[in-house]
Amino acid sequence: MTTARRDTYTPETLLSVAVQVFNERGYDGTSMEHLSKAAGISKSSIYHHVSSKEELLRRAVSRALDGLFTILDEEHARVGRPVDRLEHVVRRMVEVLMGELPYVTLLLRVRGNTETERWALERRRDFDHRVAELLKAAAADGDVRGDVEVRLATRLVFGMINSIVEWYRPDPRGSGEREVADAVVQVVFSGLRST
Amino acid sequence: MTTARRDTYTPETLLSVAVQVFNERGYDGTSMEHLSKAAGISKSSIYHHVSSKEELLRRAVSRALDGLFTILDEEHARVGRPVDRLEHVVRRMVEVLMGELPYVTLLLRVRGNTETERWALERRRDFDHRVAELLKAAAADGDVRGDVEVRLATRLVFGMINSIVEWYRPDPRGSGEREVADAVVQVVFSGLRST
Repeated sequence: MTTARRDTYTPETLLSVAVQVFNERGYDGTSMEHLSKAAGISKSSIYHHVSSKEELLRRAVSRALDGLFTILDEEHARVGRPVDRLEHVVRRMVEVLMGELPYVTLLLRVRGNTETERWALERRRDFDHRVAELLKAAAADGDVRGDVEVRLATRLVFGMINSIVEWYRPDPRGSGEREVADAVVQVVFSGLRST
Repeated sequence: MTTARRDTYTPETLLSVAVQVFNERGYDGTSMEHLSKAAGISKSSIYHHVSSKEELLRRAVSRALDGLFTILDEEHARVGRPVDRLEHVVRRMVEVLMGELPYVTLLLRVRGNTETERWALERRRDFDHRVAELLKAAAADGDVRGDVEVRLATRLVFGMINSIVEWYRPDPRGSGEREVADAVVQVVFSGLRST
């Protein structure tokens, strides 16, 4: 079986196995031995694909970060009233989180012990900052309430979105994704109370 | 110094040290040795106060759970329209979380490896269920929007509130607490968009 799997191994499948192990054991608690066992290939086969455990981490969190930053380049995030751009970004963040669930989960658990982790935290802060700027612009337009401080509102919205990794499990039919994204947008922008 | 601290030790101060260590190292990763070192008292002195590490965990998560369940017995949580009772509960959850920060943080990290952890998870589920029932009653009254499914809305609201443990640090003047509680209530019930 090991031989069979070795033949079909690609950097992509190795990454997917590594992310799963990182999420289960924690990045610090994962050794190359663990990865080799989980992947069913030898350590030297892993080194054929990547130079280190940290390179796997970098590739994995890059995938999550690229997914998030791509949102900001989308037309609906760049053109229009800030409040509508913000709504687009919030919806797409939920979609990216669900679509890249293990990668975003790993990104959210990064602690800052290695250079790669510190880089990932810095990129996360950049992203948070970009979203906070959008919220600030929407507040300046009077489209977002002024009685909730921008940094606090950003933290609460990110808190709600990021908490989805704790309970969301992909539905093979993908039917739940739209419902979750809609619900987040409804709560964040309109609240639960009927008007 | 060890002797001096030993004299003033109470079950209360021991609990406070234990919770801090559990939060830093994880409950599983904490030994009686770690607790003894952090508290500056011998292991046998600890056993004078408690029978096991698990008893300390039970006392700590009980403190958080008691704080949360007490909310449900408050007059404003029992009397009035469900939507207003729900608003009271949400505000008070935020206050209890900030007031009992290390205890609630520990409660939210419980994994279910021991009997005490499974008991704590069960009590958390009970609490979540009680809040979901309130949300359902408010929706039945037409006071809460019907287009967000109750279980999903409950998860998102708990997600937002629980995420506060990730960044909130007590302000000696306590001035930030009111602002955070107000912000959560505003976002959850009215949303960010100006109307």
